[in-house]
Amino acid sequence: MTTQTTNGLDTQVLAQTVDALKRDRTLAKFEFRAGNTWIGGTTNRSTIQGFFGAGAEDKSRSEPFTFTNGEPPLLLGSNEGANPVEFLLHALAGCVTTTTILHATARGIRIQSISTELSGDIDLQGLLDLDNSVPVGFRQITMKMDIKADCGDAELDDLLKFVHGHSPVCNTVCRPVPVVIERVKRD
Amino acid sequence: MTTQTTNGLDTQVLAQTVDALKRDRTLAKFEFRAGNTWIGGTTNRSTIQGFFGAGAEDKSRSEPFTFTNGEPPLLLGSNEGANPVEFLLHALAGCVTTTTILHATARGIRIQSISTELSGDIDLQGLLDLDNSVPVGFRQITMKMDIKADCGDAELDDLLKFVHGHSPVCNTVCRPVPVVIERVKRD
Repeated sequence: MTTQTTNGLDTQVLAQTVDALKRDRTLAKFEFRAGNTWIGGTTNRSTIQGFFGAGAEDKSRSEPFTFTNGEPPLLLGSNEGANPVEFLLHALAGCVTTTTILHATARGIRIQSISTELSGDIDLQGLLDLDNSVPVGFRQITMKMDIKADCGDAELDDLLKFVHGHSPVCNTVCRPVPVVIERVKRD
Repeated sequence: MTTQTTNGLDTQVLAQTVDALKRDRTLAKFEFRAGNTWIGGTTNRSTIQGFFGAGAEDKSRSEPFTFTNGEPPLLLGSNEGANPVEFLLHALAGCVTTTTILHATARGIRIQSISTELSGDIDLQGLLDLDNSVPVGFRQITMKMDIKADCGDAELDDLLKFVHGHSPVCNTVCRPVPVVIERVKRD
């Protein structure tokens, strides 16, 4: 049996996955996780490995991923890693790109290339508590996408509008999502 | 002249930075950036290097940071990297941790350790367009923080409440932040 791929996705596996979810909607419930430890100053490190999805604990990763947050000297670090707001841009770029590939494939559109440039405006008076009227987070994020595909401009514009509404990270940024911070009580 | 540090932050540089921003509020305007390229299937890679801040283009990074988004087999990938929603959790963990260190230092609280465990619930029926009533992004993100410091519980609880309101990534997730996707027009 040969594998049929479009845009690098196995279309048979994609169709089977969607069918399985349609039969049992609870399989679509996922829990993703990260653990993080402060190293010192503006440096901290995350470990990412397990998650729950499709009704079971995933065991596909034998080793954890680790990522280091840092800050540039201007923000009291030594560039030990990209900083957290930059990692958010990376997450957004990746999610919009993968969502584009997924739904292009579902529509039978073959993608030749995608490159994106993201920029996000932020006023650090919010973080530093210097002005309560300034938003603490990004004011806006702009993502310029250069996409080549075997379809016309109108189809691409329609695809990207759909992707904006169906990318999990884009949606997490665009909509208000509650973040609960619980302090672990110590004896 | 000796350097005074609290929690690994140079307190003199911190005070000077805040003073400079108070004198010229426009210095607090930053623009962070990422570029991303689709590799194939559910894999894509970001490059992060320059940013604008404190009135100038930053030149502190001689090399770019690169990060790879992937997906586990269950989500049509081969674990080429953590996936975008996991990177968002890493960004959130890092931002809340660094914001905690920053404001603890401003309050004269010495932190001994911080470890956090994050989990985020997401229903992939949203991404897959199987049910319009399901949120596309995270439903909620919970962050359990184990923090040891030279102060009492009430001070820690007050600090963390303040941090929830002053972390840029936490604020970007909690508040609606516009994401604009512009397709680059080709000749």
